[in-house]
Amino acid sequence: MMQTPLTVGSLLERAEKFFAKKQVISQTHDKLHTLTYTEIGKRTRKLMSVLAELGVQKGDRVGTLAWNHHRHLEIYFAAPGIGSVLHTINIRLSPEHIIYIINHAEDKVLLIDEDILPLIEKIQGQLKTVEAFVVMTDKAELPESSLHPLYSYEELLHTGDPAFPFAADINENDPAGMCYTSATTGKPKGVLYTHRGIVLHSFALGLADTAAISESDVSMAVVPQFHVNAWGTPFACTWFGSTQVMPGPRFTPKRLAEFIEKFKVTITAGVPTIWLGLLKELEQGNYDTSSLRAVLCGGAAAPKGLIQAFEKKYKIPFYHAYGATETTPLVTFSRLKSYQQDLSDDEKLEERSRQGILVPGLEMKIIGNDGEVAWDNQEMGELCLRGPWIASEYYKDERSENAFTDGWFHTGDVVTVDEEGTIKIVDRTKDLIKSGGEWISSVELENALMAHDAVFEASVIAIPDKKWQERPIACVVLHEGYRDSVGKAELLEFLRPQFAKFWVPDDILFFDEIPKTSVGKFLKRQLREQVKEHYSLQQ
Amino acid sequence: MMQTPLTVGSLLERAEKFFAKKQVISQTHDKLHTLTYTEIGKRTRKLMSVLAELGVQKGDRVGTLAWNHHRHLEIYFAAPGIGSVLHTINIRLSPEHIIYIINHAEDKVLLIDEDILPLIEKIQGQLKTVEAFVVMTDKAELPESSLHPLYSYEELLHTGDPAFPFAADINENDPAGMCYTSATTGKPKGVLYTHRGIVLHSFALGLADTAAISESDVSMAVVPQFHVNAWGTPFACTWFGSTQVMPGPRFTPKRLAEFIEKFKVTITAGVPTIWLGLLKELEQGNYDTSSLRAVLCGGAAAPKGLIQAFEKKYKIPFYHAYGATETTPLVTFSRLKSYQQDLSDDEKLEERSRQGILVPGLEMKIIGNDGEVAWDNQEMGELCLRGPWIASEYYKDERSENAFTDGWFHTGDVVTVDEEGTIKIVDRTKDLIKSGGEWISSVELENALMAHDAVFEASVIAIPDKKWQERPIACVVLHEGYRDSVGKAELLEFLRPQFAKFWVPDDILFFDEIPKTSVGKFLKRQLREQVKEHYSLQQ
Repeated sequence: MMQTPLTVGSLLERAEKFFAKKQVISQTHDKLHTLTYTEIGKRTRKLMSVLAELGVQKGDRVGTLAWNHHRHLEIYFAAPGIGSVLHTINIRLSPEHIIYIINHAEDKVLLIDEDILPLIEKIQGQLKTVEAFVVMTDKAELPESSLHPLYSYEELLHTGDPAFPFAADINENDPAGMCYTSATTGKPKGVLYTHRGIVLHSFALGLADTAAISESDVSMAVVPQFHVNAWGTPFACTWFGSTQVMPGPRFTPKRLAEFIEKFKVTITAGVPTIWLGLLKELEQGNYDTSSLRAVLCGGAAAPKGLIQAFEKKYKIPFYHAYGATETTPLVTFSRLKSYQQDLSDDEKLEERSRQGILVPGLEMKIIGNDGEVAWDNQEMGELCLRGPWIASEYYKDERSENAFTDGWFHTGDVVTVDEEGTIKIVDRTKDLIKSGGEWISSVELENALMAHDAVFEASVIAIPDKKWQERPIACVVLHEGYRDSVGKAELLEFLRPQFAKFWVPDDILFFDEIPKTSVGKFLKRQLREQVKEHYSLQQ
Repeated sequence: MMQTPLTVGSLLERAEKFFAKKQVISQTHDKLHTLTYTEIGKRTRKLMSVLAELGVQKGDRVGTLAWNHHRHLEIYFAAPGIGSVLHTINIRLSPEHIIYIINHAEDKVLLIDEDILPLIEKIQGQLKTVEAFVVMTDKAELPESSLHPLYSYEELLHTGDPAFPFAADINENDPAGMCYTSATTGKPKGVLYTHRGIVLHSFALGLADTAAISESDVSMAVVPQFHVNAWGTPFACTWFGSTQVMPGPRFTPKRLAEFIEKFKVTITAGVPTIWLGLLKELEQGNYDTSSLRAVLCGGAAAPKGLIQAFEKKYKIPFYHAYGATETTPLVTFSRLKSYQQDLSDDEKLEERSRQGILVPGLEMKIIGNDGEVAWDNQEMGELCLRGPWIASEYYKDERSENAFTDGWFHTGDVVTVDEEGTIKIVDRTKDLIKSGGEWISSVELENALMAHDAVFEASVIAIPDKKWQERPIACVVLHEGYRDSVGKAELLEFLRPQFAKFWVPDDILFFDEIPKTSVGKFLKRQLREQVKEHYSLQQ
C-alpha cells in the first residue's frame, strides 16, 4: 500500500472539492457570517501564506484565544496546514495560567478575539516568545490596543494567497494541535495532537455507531473550540461536508435554542451544564427542535433526569460520550446495542446514562485494587487507555510519569464495567470517598440527587472523619420554586432506599451555585474549602 | 500521541470483548452453523496456534481456496494474527493461473474447501512451495485424497490453544493480506494489503456517508471472500459487531433470497450479475425483503433499470460503489448529498447510477488527453488514485511500472466527473471505442441498452474499421419472453434519440449468454473473438 500520510490539511481539501457549496454559518461579535467551504478554503490558504510571512515555521506554535466562529475554524486548518501547531488556549483560565501556558508552549503568534484583547494587554509584559498579535475582528480599523505588533486578521487576509498549497512535507506523526488541561490543581499540562491522531479520531466520529457525523448534518459545536478542539467536531464536520453552525462569543441558552430552530441543527455537542441551561430555555420558549437527531453530552456525567427530559419531553435523542484532553477526546460512546432495544424503558435509561463502549481504534483496561476488574457492574477501577489518539506524555512536563506508565494512559477516572463492556464513570480517583475501608462514588450520589425534582445541581465531596477516615457531604442547588419547600431531611429520605447505609451523606448543604471549572465541571477543590469554612464557622 | 499500530487482530479482539454474543451464521456444504464472536475468537486463536505449529512464520503466505463461510472468516484473522499473510485465491481462475499464483506467492500452507480438493489434486505436482494442505470440512474423517500432508481443519483445531495471543510485533505496514487480480490478459498480478490499509479501509466502510456498517446490521457478503476480501466487509463487520451471514458454497439466487428473509439481512454486497439473478428470484418467489437497508453494488456498473427495480418495486435502497483489487477496494460510494434530495426522480436516478464521490481518506485525479479533466460531466479521463489503502505496486511484478507512476495508481478506468465530484465509469481505457478521432463509451451504450425492457444483458465492443478506425457492435442477451418479438431494428431505434449519431452501434448481435470473468464482469476479449468469428463465418 502507498505510504501516504494522514494529514489535517487533507480534511479541508476534501471539503473544498466535494462540498464546495456547503456552508459554515458563524456568529461573531458584530454579525452573522455565511461562508461556503470554497470561501473557507481560500481564506484558510490566505491565512497559511500570511502565517508563513509572519515567520511561522514548521513546528512553531500558533496560539488562539477565541470563541467558536469561522476564523477560529480557518486557523484550525491553517496552522497545521503549514506544518505549525494550532495551540488553542482556554480563555477562561486565570491570567496566571494563561501566561504559563503561552510561555510553556512558546507560542510565536497569538490570534485573539477582540473582547479578549484586554486580558492579553494586561499580561503582555510577561509573554516571552510572542512575536505578533492578530485580532480577529470584523471591523475595518484596528482597535486601540497596547499590543505590538498588532495586525488585523482581515487586513492580513487581503494580502494572502488564496491558492497557497498545504505543506507537502508533513509526517503524520508531526504535531498538528495542542491543548492544555484545565488543571484544578497545579499548572496546566500540555497535550500535543498529531496529524495522524486527528484524522483517525475524525474517522471515529463519522462511524454509524458513534456520532455518525455526515454530509447531511447541520452541526453546532457548543463545546468551545478552545477546549480539546471542540471535541474534534470541526475537523470531522469539515471532512464529511456537514453544515457547521458556530454560536460565537458569549452565547446564551436563548441563542442556542434560536440557532437550533433557525438553522435546523441536527447534531450538537456540549457539557451537561450547557444542556441544563438549554433545557430551561426550551421550557420557557416555544422552539422547534425537531431537526435535532443527536445531542452529544460529555465532559461530565449527565444525570438521568436530563437524559429523560430531552428524550421523553422533547423527543431529542441524547447521547453520552466520554473523553479527556489527553484523548483527542472521544473514548466511549453510548448507544444501545441492537439486542438492547428489547429492554424496558428503565433499563434503557440506565444503560444510556452510562458512558458507553469503547470506540473502534482504542484499547482499554480497568485497574482495580487487584488487577483488572471483572465486567460485573460492581468492581471499581481506574480506566486506562491506549491507542493512536491517546497522548503518550504531557508536553515537556515531568508530571508525565504519573499518568503515562507501561504504555497506558491512566485517566484518573474510576469506572465500573457491565457485561456489555459499557463503562460508567463513578468518580475521579481523587474524588472517590474512602469510608471505613470501602469506596463511595461521589458521582453516583450526585446523579441520584439530581434525579430529584427539586434538585438543579448536586456535588458530593469527602470531609475528613476520625472514625471512618472520610465521610460524604452533599452540596445542593435547588430549583427556584423549591427553595422554601424542600430540605435536608427530604433529600436524605430520598437517597436512603437507593444506597447502602454507609453511602448516605452525613449532611446536605444548600448553595446558590456550585463553583465550576472553566469547562463547566464541578470544582470540588474549591467546594471542599467552602464546606470546610462552613463547618468551622458553625463551631 | 501513542505509537500504537493499526492491526487486523485488533478488529477481532474488539468483537470478542464487546460483541461476545453476536453471531456469525455460516452455510457450509453439510450444514448451517451458528457461532458467537466468542466462539469465532477462540477458534481463530486455536487456528493461529496450529498455523504456528505447522511452521508458518512471520511474512509467510497462507493460501485459501474457499467459499464464504465461518472457517474462511477465521483464517482472515488467524493468518495476519500471527504476522503471516492471508492469500485468498480465486477458485474460478484457470488451473494454469492458480498454479502460477500459488507458486508466485510462495504459499506455505493451503486451506481448501472439500469440493475444491479435486482441482488442487490435479495440480499438486506443480506446486513448488506448499508444505501442508488443510481441508475445511465438517466431516469427522479426512476425505480420500492424493494431497499430502493433508490435515482436517477441525481436527487441527482440537489441538489448538483457545487463548493464543495475537502477535505483538506487528508493524502496521506489514502485509496482512494478498489477492491477485483476475486478469483478462496475461498472468494475474498480486496485490499486498497491509494491516494499516485494512484497518483504515474498515473505518471507511463504517462511515455514515458510505456503507455505514454498524452493530445493528445483519450483513451478508455475496461477493466472494476470495475476491478482494469480500470488499473488506468481513473485517469491518467483525470490528463493528455486525451479525454476519455467509451464504457458503455454490449458492443460488434462491438461497440468497431465503437467507435475506430468514436472517433479516440488512446489508448485502455483490456484483450486478448477482443482483440481476436475485431480482429474477424475487419476481418468482414471494420473499419478505423489508429488512434490507442497503444493497451495495460494485465490480461493474449497474444499469439504471436494475437500480430502479430494487428501489421502486421492492423499496430496497441500492447503492453503487466502485473499487478494484488494487484499492482494498472501496474508492467511491454513491449517496445523494443532502441538497440533491430536491432533484426530480429522474435526476436522482441519474446521479445514483453514477459511482459516487471519493470516500474520506483517498485522493483522486482524472487525467484526460490534456491533463486533468474539467468536472463537467463531459470530459473523459483515466481515474488515478492515491491513499493509504491503494496499492503501491504489484507483488514482485515488472508490470508495476505501467500502473504505478508518479506516486499514483492508474486504474485503467475511464470516467467523467460532474460538478459534485461524482464519478461515472464510462469505460476501461482498453475498451473505449475510438471512432473518427472521438471516444465512444461502451459502458454508456450498454447501460442504455439494458434500460430497454427486453434486454437482460448487453456488452458493446469495438471492431476494427478502415474508415473510422473502430466502430461499436452491441452484443445482447434478451429476456426469455422477448426473444421472438424484439430485434435489431427496435433496439437501434431505441438508442438513436439518446446518443450522437456516430455513437449508435453498427450492428446488434444476439447471444444466449455473454462470457464473463470469474468475478462476473463481461469478458470482452473473448466476446471480441466470438464476434470476429461470427463475421468471418458470415463472409
